[in-house]
Amino acid sequence: MKSQTLMDQVVEAFTCLPGVGPKSAQRMMLYLLERDREGGRRLAEVLARAMSDVGNCSRCRNLSETEICELCSDASRDPAVLCVVENPADVLAIEHSGGYRGYYFVLMGTLSPIDGRGPEEIGVDHLVNRCGDGVREVILAVSSTVEGEATAHYIAEALAPQDLSLSRIAQGIPLGGELEYVDGVTLTHAIEGRKSLQRGVSE
Amino acid sequence: MKSQTLMDQVVEAFTCLPGVGPKSAQRMMLYLLERDREGGRRLAEVLARAMSDVGNCSRCRNLSETEICELCSDASRDPAVLCVVENPADVLAIEHSGGYRGYYFVLMGTLSPIDGRGPEEIGVDHLVNRCGDGVREVILAVSSTVEGEATAHYIAEALAPQDLSLSRIAQGIPLGGELEYVDGVTLTHAIEGRKSLQRGVSE
Repeated sequence: MKSQTLMDQVVEAFTCLPGVGPKSAQRMMLYLLERDREGGRRLAEVLARAMSDVGNCSRCRNLSETEICELCSDASRDPAVLCVVENPADVLAIEHSGGYRGYYFVLMGTLSPIDGRGPEEIGVDHLVNRCGDGVREVILAVSSTVEGEATAHYIAEALAPQDLSLSRIAQGIPLGGELEYVDGVTLTHAIEGRKSLQRGVSE
Repeated sequence: MKSQTLMDQVVEAFTCLPGVGPKSAQRMMLYLLERDREGGRRLAEVLARAMSDVGNCSRCRNLSETEICELCSDASRDPAVLCVVENPADVLAIEHSGGYRGYYFVLMGTLSPIDGRGPEEIGVDHLVNRCGDGVREVILAVSSTVEGEATAHYIAEALAPQDLSLSRIAQGIPLGGELEYVDGVTLTHAIEGRKSLQRGVSE
Protein backbone atom coordinates (compact mmCIF):
# COMPACT_ATOMS: atom_id res chain seq x y z
CA MET A 1 0.00 0.00 0.00
CA LYS A 2 1.18 3.47 -0.88
CA SER A 3 1.13 6.10 1.85
CA GLN A 4 -1.55 8.74 1.47
CA THR A 5 -0.38 11.95 -0.15
CA LEU A 6 -1.37 15.35 1.20
CA MET A 7 -3.77 15.77 -1.72
CA ASP A 8 -5.46 12.44 -0.98
CA GLN A 9 -5.87 13.61 2.60
CA VAL A 10 -7.51 16.86 1.44
CA VAL A 11 -9.97 14.92 -0.73
CA GLU A 12 -10.77 12.63 2.18
CA ALA A 13 -11.20 15.57 4.55
CA PHE A 14 -13.63 17.28 2.14
CA THR A 15 -15.84 14.17 2.03
CA CYS A 16 -16.72 14.72 5.69
CA LEU A 17 -18.92 17.61 4.50
CA PRO A 18 -22.62 16.84 3.95
CA GLY A 19 -23.47 16.21 0.29
CA VAL A 20 -19.83 15.93 -0.77
CA GLY A 21 -18.67 12.63 -2.29
CA PRO A 22 -15.18 11.71 -3.54
CA LYS A 23 -15.79 13.27 -6.99
CA SER A 24 -16.95 16.64 -5.67
CA ALA A 25 -14.21 16.57 -3.05
CA GLN A 26 -11.59 16.08 -5.78
CA ARG A 27 -13.14 18.88 -7.82
CA MET A 28 -13.08 21.22 -4.81
CA MET A 29 -9.44 20.46 -4.06
CA LEU A 30 -8.29 20.89 -7.67
CA TYR A 31 -10.29 24.10 -8.00
CA LEU A 32 -8.67 25.61 -4.93
CA LEU A 33 -5.16 24.47 -5.92
CA GLU A 34 -5.45 25.59 -9.52
CA ARG A 35 -7.48 28.75 -9.21
CA ASP A 36 -8.12 30.02 -5.72
CA ARG A 37 -5.32 29.40 -3.25
CA GLU A 38 -6.19 32.59 -1.42
CA GLY A 39 -9.77 31.37 -0.92
CA GLY A 40 -8.49 27.99 0.25
CA ARG A 41 -6.15 29.59 2.77
CA ARG A 42 -8.94 31.78 4.06
CA LEU A 43 -11.31 28.82 4.38
CA ALA A 44 -8.69 26.84 6.31
CA GLU A 45 -8.04 29.74 8.64
CA VAL A 46 -11.62 30.73 9.54
CA LEU A 47 -12.64 27.08 9.76
CA ALA A 48 -9.88 26.27 12.24
CA ARG A 49 -10.84 29.30 14.34
CA ALA A 50 -14.55 28.44 14.23
CA MET A 51 -13.95 24.81 15.24
CA SER A 52 -12.17 25.89 18.42
CA ASP A 53 -13.91 29.20 19.24
CA VAL A 54 -17.59 28.51 18.59
CA GLY A 55 -19.43 27.23 21.64
CA ASN A 56 -22.99 27.53 22.84
CA CYS A 57 -24.74 30.66 24.10
CA SER A 58 -25.29 30.29 27.84
CA ARG A 59 -28.75 31.80 27.50
CA CYS A 60 -30.34 30.15 24.43
CA ARG A 61 -27.90 27.28 23.76
CA ASN A 62 -27.52 28.38 20.12
CA LEU A 63 -24.07 28.17 18.53
CA SER A 64 -22.15 31.31 19.39
CA GLU A 65 -18.58 32.51 19.50
CA THR A 66 -19.41 34.70 22.51
CA GLU A 67 -20.73 33.81 25.98
CA ILE A 68 -24.11 35.38 25.13
CA CYS A 69 -25.03 35.19 21.44
CA GLU A 70 -25.82 38.13 19.23
CA LEU A 71 -29.58 37.50 19.26
CA CYS A 72 -29.75 37.17 23.05
CA SER A 73 -27.72 40.38 23.37
CA ASP A 74 -30.18 42.31 21.20
CA ALA A 75 -32.11 44.45 23.69
CA SER A 76 -34.59 45.62 21.06
CA ARG A 77 -36.33 42.23 21.03
CA ASP A 78 -39.48 41.33 22.90
CA PRO A 79 -38.44 39.67 26.20
CA ALA A 80 -41.93 38.23 26.77
CA VAL A 81 -41.84 35.82 23.81
CA LEU A 82 -39.60 32.77 23.53
CA CYS A 83 -39.49 30.54 20.47
CA VAL A 84 -38.24 26.98 21.08
CA VAL A 85 -36.55 25.40 18.05
CA GLU A 86 -34.62 22.22 17.38
CA ASN A 87 -31.41 23.51 15.91
CA PRO A 88 -29.40 26.58 14.83
CA ALA A 89 -30.58 26.26 11.21
CA ASP A 90 -34.16 26.79 12.40
CA VAL A 91 -33.18 30.05 14.11
CA LEU A 92 -31.59 31.24 10.86
CA ALA A 93 -34.70 30.25 8.88
CA ILE A 94 -37.05 32.12 11.24
CA GLU A 95 -34.73 35.14 11.37
CA HIS A 96 -34.59 35.13 7.60
CA SER A 97 -38.39 35.14 7.38
CA GLY A 98 -38.30 38.40 9.34
CA GLY A 99 -41.64 37.79 11.04
CA TYR A 100 -40.48 37.20 14.59
CA ARG A 101 -39.05 39.65 17.13
CA GLY A 102 -38.81 37.64 20.35
CA TYR A 103 -35.97 35.51 21.72
CA TYR A 104 -35.06 31.88 21.00
CA PHE A 105 -34.21 28.72 22.83
CA VAL A 106 -32.37 26.04 20.89
CA LEU A 107 -32.82 22.41 21.99
CA MET A 108 -29.93 21.20 19.77
CA GLY A 109 -31.92 18.11 18.83
CA THR A 110 -35.12 16.35 19.78
CA LEU A 111 -35.88 13.79 22.43
CA SER A 112 -34.68 10.48 21.06
CA PRO A 113 -34.06 7.79 23.68
CA ILE A 114 -32.75 5.45 20.98
CA ASP A 115 -29.88 7.89 20.28
CA GLY A 116 -29.36 8.56 23.96
CA ARG A 117 -30.92 12.04 23.87
CA GLY A 118 -33.08 12.54 26.93
CA PRO A 119 -34.49 15.72 28.55
CA GLU A 120 -31.06 16.66 29.87
CA GLU A 121 -29.42 16.59 26.44
CA ILE A 122 -32.04 18.93 24.97
CA GLY A 123 -31.76 21.24 27.97
CA VAL A 124 -35.30 21.09 29.36
CA ASP A 125 -34.20 22.22 32.86
CA HIS A 126 -32.31 25.07 31.27
CA LEU A 127 -35.46 26.02 29.34
CA VAL A 128 -37.62 25.91 32.48
CA ASN A 129 -35.17 28.30 34.20
CA ARG A 130 -35.03 30.53 31.13
CA CYS A 131 -38.83 30.83 31.15
CA GLY A 132 -38.74 32.20 34.70
CA ASP A 133 -36.91 35.20 33.28
CA GLY A 134 -39.83 37.41 32.23
CA VAL A 135 -41.16 35.13 29.49
CA ARG A 136 -44.93 35.14 29.12
CA GLU A 137 -45.39 33.25 25.86
CA VAL A 138 -43.58 30.17 24.59
CA ILE A 139 -43.92 29.14 20.94
CA LEU A 140 -42.94 25.52 20.27
CA ALA A 141 -41.51 25.62 16.75
CA VAL A 142 -40.25 22.04 16.59
CA SER A 143 -40.57 19.83 13.52
CA SER A 144 -43.76 18.01 12.77
CA THR A 145 -42.09 14.59 13.09
CA VAL A 146 -42.73 11.85 15.64
CA GLU A 147 -39.68 12.97 17.66
CA GLY A 148 -40.69 16.63 17.29
CA GLU A 149 -44.21 15.97 18.55
CA ALA A 150 -42.92 13.91 21.48
CA THR A 151 -40.48 16.71 22.32
CA ALA A 152 -43.21 19.35 22.13
CA HIS A 153 -45.41 17.25 24.40
CA TYR A 154 -42.63 16.72 26.95
CA ILE A 155 -41.77 20.41 27.04
CA ALA A 156 -45.42 21.39 27.38
CA GLU A 157 -45.65 19.12 30.45
CA ALA A 158 -42.45 20.50 31.92
CA LEU A 159 -43.64 24.08 31.51
CA ALA A 160 -47.20 23.41 32.73
CA PRO A 161 -46.56 24.56 36.32
CA GLN A 162 -45.49 28.00 35.09
CA ASP A 163 -48.08 30.60 34.18
CA LEU A 164 -47.25 30.78 30.47
CA SER A 165 -49.16 31.01 27.24
CA LEU A 166 -47.94 28.00 25.28
CA SER A 167 -48.45 27.49 21.56
CA ARG A 168 -47.35 25.26 18.72
CA ILE A 169 -46.68 26.74 15.26
CA ALA A 170 -49.50 26.10 12.80
CA GLN A 171 -49.60 23.02 10.61
CA GLY A 172 -51.25 23.32 7.22
CA ILE A 173 -50.58 23.65 3.54
CA PRO A 174 -47.45 25.65 2.65
CA LEU A 175 -47.70 28.88 0.66
CA GLY A 176 -47.92 28.00 -3.04
CA GLY A 177 -48.66 24.39 -2.14
CA GLU A 178 -51.13 22.74 -4.50
CA LEU A 179 -53.79 20.84 -2.60
CA GLU A 180 -53.52 17.93 -4.99
CA TYR A 181 -49.92 17.23 -3.96
CA VAL A 182 -50.24 17.78 -0.21
CA ASP A 183 -50.20 14.59 1.87
CA GLY A 184 -53.29 13.41 3.68
CA VAL A 185 -52.11 13.99 7.25
CA THR A 186 -51.15 17.59 6.46
CA LEU A 187 -54.55 18.13 4.81
CA THR A 188 -56.34 16.73 7.85
CA HIS A 189 -54.37 19.12 10.10
CA ALA A 190 -55.06 21.99 7.71
CA ILE A 191 -58.80 21.34 7.79
CA GLU A 192 -58.87 20.88 11.57
CA GLY A 193 -56.92 24.10 12.02
CA ARG A 194 -59.11 26.12 9.64
CA LYS A 195 -59.54 29.84 10.33
CA SER A 196 -62.80 31.68 9.93
CA LEU A 197 -62.76 34.46 7.38
CA GLN A 198 -65.66 36.34 9.01
CA ARG A 199 -64.44 39.34 10.88
CA GLY A 200 -64.99 39.23 14.59
CA VAL A 201 -65.39 35.47 14.56
CA SER A 202 -61.78 34.50 13.93
CA GLU A 203 -59.46 34.95 16.90
CA MET B 1 -24.03 47.57 9.49
CA LYS B 2 -23.17 44.81 11.91
CA SER B 3 -19.66 43.43 11.82
CA GLN B 4 -19.33 39.95 10.34
CA THR B 5 -19.25 37.19 12.89
CA LEU B 6 -16.81 34.31 12.64
CA MET B 7 -19.64 32.02 11.54
CA ASP B 8 -20.65 34.43 8.75
CA GLN B 9 -17.01 34.38 7.63
CA VAL B 10 -16.99 30.57 7.52
CA VAL B 11 -20.16 30.55 5.39
CA GLU B 12 -18.62 33.12 3.04
CA ALA B 13 -15.35 31.16 2.83
CA PHE B 14 -17.22 27.95 1.93
CA THR B 15 -18.97 29.67 -0.99
CA CYS B 16 -15.60 29.98 -2.74
CA LEU B 17 -15.86 26.24 -3.45
CA PRO B 18 -17.29 25.18 -6.82
CA GLY B 19 -20.97 24.24 -6.64
CA VAL B 20 -21.42 25.63 -3.14
CA GLY B 21 -23.93 28.45 -2.66
CA PRO B 22 -24.85 30.28 0.56
CA LYS B 23 -27.41 27.60 1.57
CA SER B 24 -25.03 24.65 1.20
CA ALA B 25 -22.26 26.68 2.84
CA GLN B 26 -24.47 27.29 5.87
CA ARG B 27 -25.40 23.62 5.99
CA MET B 28 -21.72 22.59 5.84
CA MET B 29 -20.76 24.96 8.63
CA LEU B 30 -23.62 23.91 10.92
CA TYR B 31 -22.92 20.25 10.23
CA LEU B 32 -19.27 20.60 11.20
CA LEU B 33 -20.04 22.69 14.30
CA GLU B 34 -22.85 20.46 15.53
CA ARG B 35 -21.61 17.02 14.59
CA ASP B 36 -18.07 16.79 13.34
CA ARG B 37 -15.65 19.27 14.87
CA GLU B 38 -12.83 16.76 14.54
CA GLY B 39 -13.50 16.50 10.78
CA GLY B 40 -13.63 20.28 10.51
CA ARG B 41 -10.32 20.67 12.32
CA ARG B 42 -8.73 18.07 10.11
CA LEU B 43 -10.07 19.71 6.95
CA ALA B 44 -8.72 23.09 8.08
CA GLU B 45 -5.33 21.61 8.85
CA VAL B 46 -4.71 19.59 5.67
CA LEU B 47 -6.20 22.35 3.53
CA ALA B 48 -3.83 24.95 4.98
CA ARG B 49 -0.87 22.63 4.41
CA ALA B 50 -1.94 21.80 0.84
CA MET B 51 -2.41 25.46 -0.08
CA SER B 52 1.17 26.25 0.88
CA ASP B 53 2.97 22.97 0.11
CA VAL B 54 1.49 21.82 -3.20
CA GLY B 55 3.40 23.10 -6.20
CA ASN B 56 4.00 21.71 -9.67
CA CYS B 57 6.10 18.70 -10.60
CA SER B 58 9.23 19.91 -12.37
CA ARG B 59 8.95 17.06 -14.87
CA CYS B 60 5.26 16.87 -15.86
CA ARG B 61 3.90 20.14 -14.41
CA ASN B 62 1.15 18.26 -12.58
CA LEU B 63 0.20 19.40 -9.07
CA SER B 64 2.57 17.80 -6.61
CA GLU B 65 3.75 18.28 -3.07
CA THR B 66 7.21 17.01 -4.03
CA GLU B 67 9.74 18.27 -6.58
CA ILE B 68 9.05 15.24 -8.80
CA CYS B 69 5.51 13.90 -8.54
CA GLU B 70 4.56 10.36 -7.59
CA LEU B 71 3.73 9.33 -11.17
CA CYS B 72 6.97 10.70 -12.62
CA SER B 73 8.92 8.91 -9.86
CA ASP B 74 7.31 5.57 -10.72
CA ALA B 75 10.10 3.69 -12.53
CA SER B 76 7.78 0.85 -13.54
CA ARG B 77 6.09 2.99 -16.18
CA ASP B 78 6.89 2.99 -19.88
CA PRO B 79 9.36 5.86 -20.53
CA ALA B 80 8.70 5.79 -24.29
CA VAL B 81 5.10 6.99 -24.07
CA LEU B 82 3.99 10.45 -22.97
CA CYS B 83 0.35 11.47 -22.65
CA VAL B 84 -0.34 15.21 -22.90
CA VAL B 85 -3.43 16.34 -20.97
CA GLU B 86 -4.99 19.68 -20.10
CA ASN B 87 -5.27 19.48 -16.34
CA PRO B 88 -4.67 17.38 -13.20
CA ALA B 89 -8.25 16.04 -13.23
CA ASP B 90 -7.55 14.44 -16.63
CA VAL B 91 -4.54 12.60 -15.21
CA LEU B 92 -6.71 11.26 -12.40
CA ALA B 93 -9.42 10.20 -14.89
CA ILE B 94 -6.92 8.33 -17.10
CA GLU B 95 -5.20 6.75 -14.09
CA HIS B 96 -8.58 5.68 -12.79
CA SER B 97 -9.39 3.99 -16.11
CA GLY B 98 -6.29 1.86 -15.56
CA GLY B 99 -5.56 1.47 -19.27
CA TYR B 100 -2.41 3.57 -19.55
CA ARG B 101 1.08 2.85 -18.25
CA GLY B 102 3.21 5.66 -19.69
CA TYR B 103 4.05 9.08 -18.27
CA TYR B 104 2.10 12.34 -18.41
CA PHE B 105 2.62 15.97 -19.27
CA VAL B 106 0.07 18.44 -17.90
CA LEU B 107 -0.48 21.69 -19.82
CA MET B 108 -2.49 23.24 -16.96
CA GLY B 109 -4.90 24.76 -19.46
CA THR B 110 -5.30 25.23 -23.18
CA LEU B 111 -4.06 27.90 -25.53
CA SER B 112 -6.44 30.80 -25.12
CA PRO B 113 -5.08 34.17 -26.25
CA ILE B 114 -8.24 35.89 -25.01
CA ASP B 115 -7.41 34.78 -21.43
CA GLY B 116 -3.72 35.58 -21.88
CA ARG B 117 -2.65 31.92 -22.13
CA GLY B 118 -0.04 31.53 -24.82
CA PRO B 119 2.46 28.70 -25.56
CA GLU B 120 4.59 29.75 -22.59
CA GLU B 121 1.72 29.45 -20.08
CA ILE B 122 0.93 25.90 -21.21
CA GLY B 123 4.63 24.96 -21.12
CA VAL B 124 5.22 24.02 -24.78
CA ASP B 125 9.00 24.60 -24.51
CA HIS B 126 9.04 22.46 -21.40
CA LEU B 127 7.16 19.73 -23.31
CA VAL B 128 9.59 19.89 -26.25
CA ASN B 129 12.51 19.39 -23.80
CA ARG B 130 10.68 16.61 -22.00
CA CYS B 131 10.20 14.75 -25.30
CA GLY B 132 13.97 14.71 -25.88
CA ASP B 133 14.19 12.47 -22.83
CA GLY B 134 13.64 9.04 -24.38
CA VAL B 135 10.04 9.59 -25.46
CA ARG B 136 9.07 7.88 -28.72
CA GLU B 137 5.31 8.32 -28.72
CA VAL B 138 3.23 11.34 -27.72
CA ILE B 139 -0.52 10.95 -27.21
CA LEU B 140 -2.41 14.25 -27.33
CA ALA B 141 -5.32 13.68 -24.94
CA VAL B 142 -6.70 17.22 -24.92
CA SER B 143 -10.41 18.03 -25.00
CA SER B 144 -12.32 18.01 -28.21
CA THR B 145 -13.18 21.72 -27.93
CA VAL B 146 -12.11 24.60 -30.18
CA GLU B 147 -9.32 25.52 -27.72
CA GLY B 148 -8.34 21.89 -27.30
CA GLU B 149 -8.05 21.34 -31.06
CA ALA B 150 -6.02 24.55 -31.49
CA THR B 151 -3.73 23.45 -28.67
CA ALA B 152 -3.28 19.97 -30.16
CA HIS B 153 -2.47 21.54 -33.53
CA TYR B 154 0.07 23.94 -32.02
CA ILE B 155 1.80 21.19 -30.04
CA ALA B 156 1.91 18.91 -33.11
CA GLU B 157 3.69 21.70 -35.01
CA ALA B 158 6.14 22.32 -32.16
CA LEU B 159 7.00 18.61 -31.92
CA ALA B 160 7.23 18.07 -35.70
CA PRO B 161 11.06 18.46 -35.87
CA GLN B 162 11.50 15.58 -33.42
CA ASP B 163 11.30 12.00 -34.59
CA LEU B 164 8.15 11.06 -32.63
CA SER B 165 5.04 9.06 -33.26
CA LEU B 166 2.27 11.58 -32.54
CA SER B 167 -1.37 10.64 -32.01
CA ARG B 168 -4.62 12.16 -30.87
CA ILE B 169 -7.03 10.10 -28.72
CA ALA B 170 -9.93 8.71 -30.71
CA GLN B 171 -13.15 10.61 -31.15
CA GLY B 172 -16.33 8.60 -31.50
CA ILE B 173 -19.40 7.47 -29.68
CA PRO B 174 -18.93 6.82 -25.95
CA LEU B 175 -19.44 3.34 -24.54
CA GLY B 176 -23.15 2.84 -23.93
CA GLY B 177 -23.95 5.90 -26.06
CA GLU B 178 -27.08 5.50 -28.11
CA LEU B 179 -26.52 6.58 -31.70
CA GLU B 180 -29.82 8.40 -31.74
CA TYR B 181 -28.66 10.86 -29.07
CA VAL B 182 -25.09 11.41 -30.26
CA ASP B 183 -24.49 14.81 -31.92
CA GLY B 184 -23.79 15.07 -35.65
CA VAL B 185 -20.15 16.18 -35.44
CA THR B 186 -19.28 13.27 -33.16
CA LEU B 187 -21.07 10.87 -35.50
CA THR B 188 -19.13 12.22 -38.47
CA HIS B 189 -15.85 11.74 -36.57
CA ALA B 190 -16.94 8.24 -35.51
CA ILE B 191 -17.70 7.24 -39.09
CA GLU B 192 -14.47 8.78 -40.44
CA GLY B 193 -12.48 6.99 -37.73
CA ARG B 194 -14.13 3.62 -38.33
CA LYS B 195 -12.04 0.51 -37.69
CA SER B 196 -12.11 -2.59 -39.87
CA LEU B 197 -13.27 -5.75 -38.15
CA GLN B 198 -11.44 -8.05 -40.64
CA ARG B 199 -8.32 -9.45 -39.08
CA GLY B 200 -5.10 -8.40 -40.73
CA VAL B 201 -6.73 -5.34 -42.23
CA SER B 202 -7.15 -3.24 -39.12
CA GLU B 203 -3.95 -1.78 -37.69
